Amino acid sequence: MLSSDHSSVVPINLFVALLCACIVIGHLLEEQRWMNESITALAVGLCTGVVILLTTGGKSSHLLVFSEDLFFIYLLPPIIFNAGFQVKKKQFFRNFMTIMLFGAVGTLISTATISIGATHFFKKMNISSLRVGDYLAIGAIFSATDSVCTLQVLNQDETPLLALTYRTSTQALQLNFSGNFLYLFISSTILGVVTGLLSAYIIKKLYFGRHSTDREVALMILMAYLSYMLAELFYLSAILTVFFCGIVMSHYTWHNVTESSRITTKHAFATWSFVAEIFIFLYVGMDALDIEKWKVVSDSPGTSIMVSSILLGLVLVGRAAFVFPLSFLSNLTKKFPYEKIGIKQQVTIWWAGLMRGAVSMALAYNQFTRSGHTHLHGNAIMITSTITVVLFSTVVFGLMTKPLVRILLPSQKHTASMLSSEPSSPKSFAVPLLIRQDSEDDQASNDVPHRTSLRMFLSTPSHTVHHYWRKFDNSFMRPVFGGRGFVPFVPCSPTDQTVQQWQ
Amino acid sequence: MLSSDHSSVVPINLFVALLCACIVIGHLLEEQRWMNESITALAVGLCTGVVILLTTGGKSSHLLVFSEDLFFIYLLPPIIFNAGFQVKKKQFFRNFMTIMLFGAVGTLISTATISIGATHFFKKMNISSLRVGDYLAIGAIFSATDSVCTLQVLNQDETPLLALTYRTSTQALQLNFSGNFLYLFISSTILGVVTGLLSAYIIKKLYFGRHSTDREVALMILMAYLSYMLAELFYLSAILTVFFCGIVMSHYTWHNVTESSRITTKHAFATWSFVAEIFIFLYVGMDALDIEKWKVVSDSPGTSIMVSSILLGLVLVGRAAFVFPLSFLSNLTKKFPYEKIGIKQQVTIWWAGLMRGAVSMALAYNQFTRSGHTHLHGNAIMITSTITVVLFSTVVFGLMTKPLVRILLPSQKHTASMLSSEPSSPKSFAVPLLIRQDSEDDQASNDVPHRTSLRMFLSTPSHTVHHYWRKFDNSFMRPVFGGRGFVPFVPCSPTDQTVQQWQ
Repeated sequence: MLSSDHSSVVPINLFVALLCACIVIGHLLEEQRWMNESITALAVGLCTGVVILLTTGGKSSHLLVFSEDLFFIYLLPPIIFNAGFQVKKKQFFRNFMTIMLFGAVGTLISTATISIGATHFFKKMNISSLRVGDYLAIGAIFSATDSVCTLQVLNQDETPLLALTYRTSTQALQLNFSGNFLYLFISSTILGVVTGLLSAYIIKKLYFGRHSTDREVALMILMAYLSYMLAELFYLSAILTVFFCGIVMSHYTWHNVTESSRITTKHAFATWSFVAEIFIFLYVGMDALDIEKWKVVSDSPGTSIMVSSILLGLVLVGRAAFVFPLSFLSNLTKKFPYEKIGIKQQVTIWWAGLMRGAVSMALAYNQFTRSGHTHLHGNAIMITSTITVVLFSTVVFGLMTKPLVRILLPSQKHTASMLSSEPSSPKSFAVPLLIRQDSEDDQASNDVPHRTSLRMFLSTPSHTVHHYWRKFDNSFMRPVFGGRGFVPFVPCSPTDQTVQQWQ
Repeated sequence: MLSSDHSSVVPINLFVALLCACIVIGHLLEEQRWMNESITALAVGLCTGVVILLTTGGKSSHLLVFSEDLFFIYLLPPIIFNAGFQVKKKQFFRNFMTIMLFGAVGTLISTATISIGATHFFKKMNISSLRVGDYLAIGAIFSATDSVCTLQVLNQDETPLLALTYRTSTQALQLNFSGNFLYLFISSTILGVVTGLLSAYIIKKLYFGRHSTDREVALMILMAYLSYMLAELFYLSAILTVFFCGIVMSHYTWHNVTESSRITTKHAFATWSFVAEIFIFLYVGMDALDIEKWKVVSDSPGTSIMVSSILLGLVLVGRAAFVFPLSFLSNLTKKFPYEKIGIKQQVTIWWAGLMRGAVSMALAYNQFTRSGHTHLHGNAIMITSTITVVLFSTVVFGLMTKPLVRILLPSQKHTASMLSSEPSSPKSFAVPLLIRQDSEDDQASNDVPHRTSLRMFLSTPSHTVHHYWRKFDNSFMRPVFGGRGFVPFVPCSPTDQTVQQWQ
């Protein structure tokens, strides 16, 4: 079998073996505070690229040709769904306005800044073959913060803010700024929420666990995937839809299934996402040496270096252009000093979002190549520059983020130690505002010390939108769709899993 | 995104929605003793086929075109790996010789019988375009017992015997009876075992769980997939390799990971396999109405019916031709009456293996079509006949199996009640010889009543191959590769999971 195409077996074997190698090496380098899985995968990809380059006599450096379908059907959905599924819902909804401000408005500012900047500089440099659409695309490509990489460096606690930034950028490209952003946002969200609630209702009503755990798990995966594909069908933002589907599923559906299903889904989604990320970085690492594109730009090395430097500069400026003004605006609305975003925290927010990664690469390929190939001079320069920016920002900015956080926010000793030694238990890492101490649901927090959340509970006015949502959730949503406290057997939850384990 | 091929979004949506529907309907019909997921999926597929046929004005009845790659890369490996992973190792190795006898020799006899019979009848009927290779393929196609379906009917307790039968048939096709069966069998097994042991060793040495559950799970999945692809690379039997890799992983690797990883892998593999099976049956159901193939054969409906009937007859004869003689041979080697295979049990073994399913379909497509299409008269007849045989055997033979077992083996009251009411806990279903009472490892069986296993332990001579293997396993293999009792924290195991839950 597979006899029809035995030639594809060799690259698949190599790629799978490399994925394994990345996992093992990533594990061995875990202790190194400046390392993370993305950089490991990039490095392994680069090394493999060199080897392939040498063995093929300089013809090719990668094993697989970039495929949009591979990325948008197999790799992206699990990453985004998992981001929604593992998001800390309390934090996300408490800080919803701030997240929207930074995510939506911020990304628009950043995209505009980079687009205008790129148009200004590249027109002067006389780079051919770039049109208006391309400049807008460049803005979107380089506004897409690499949440994956950032989260790895910051131990997955900036999820809501960055995931949204990230999604919005992708959307922005899709929309080409056509103005119906609000329609797209609302309808995509509704579709995701409805699909999630439907899965919760079906699983609650039928109680699948009675017969088989596999059925529950299969249904959750299929419904999540269905939400993504339905959004594609209706020309909505599939990324937004699957993200909100993930949130709803973790809030309702997850509590309606058996304990085995809970553990399985939690880890299966995380694993899938993890493998997809490594896959992308490994690919980017290999593609970085793609001789075809470098050859096209090799007659003008100066131009290429200039373009990359300009883009890196625009990335820095573009993010600064919204982080500091929006933080200022946000601070105006806060009463208490501890709610405000300090200057050091602003710098952290700015810096931590500078990494560009897999999504930027995918968007660049999508815009500037046909199935991974290009011969247009301007397009080739954009691809090689994207690779340069991604490599540089991931490695240099990435490596500097942890030390920077330690210098800028040294008061949080606990944070610093968490960052360097225990990356797998990020529960208590708390950067103010960005990450307020998770207060958990009342039911679960009785026997866990929650000093910060208690202080917050006493000092903030309780008649907030969030309060009314909680009331509505408890009196209507949970009785209908299930959720914590509304299913017969509730031994643990996704967030206090770790806590229970250590008690 | 996906804008390049938005037309493929509609069928994917429909297919995913149908998969969900199959799971829900399968769950609702669970109580029906004569029903199972395969028949549900077939029925849903048929209904959808009718609807598509009507909406497209009779042009097409299926959503997706059959793709070898889809089947051999995404659907088959998880099914086979899961069969190995969930196999009851004690039973498998205790009955290894019997399994080999029935699996390898039996399938060869069955294939030869069907091939000769088909050649004899079809030559007379003057069916054009069939060559010698085709007749051998027909033998292999219709010798491939549908373990998936059979296991569903018999509650997953015949696994070892049927899984092997099934695999051997597929191989037989690959080999085209070229005689190096033994080489293929041994080298494939060794590759699977080595990959499995390597994964166990890596995970034991590095102790991934210390940092991240996801890494362990990802590594297990990737290594399993790697074993499959490596076998493809070396032109070995990938199915055998991944099956033995599954066995080794469940015996060693699985015990070296954290408890969360254990639960996750157990259920994730089972779910993946479950979804793949439904997918295949759904496809077969839809394809059954493919107008293109029926049109080709519609000018000779008599021939088509004759061919299907002959093939069904040959399936019955082919299986009888090895079950009864080999049972007789096997009985000659046994000393104690309770070890022998009674005539009623022989009939059960014969009948339970008559169902033909997804693998037969896949092999038929592979042999008689090019990407799902054919215009040759003889080939079209073979495809439609295969569909007929699969539908008939799955529905008619499938529906009659449970009642037959109840009539033939009525002494086991417990068995009968298990069959009809509790399909998700098949641990105590025991058909003699085929399924000897699982005696578990000594460490785990202390507090569980094991009357049957105790009796067996007292009555059978303990100096068997299995005994020496156990000694070797405990004194060398487990200390090196891990396994039950050789890792610090062992709260549960794949087989006594259910037991612990009910204590």
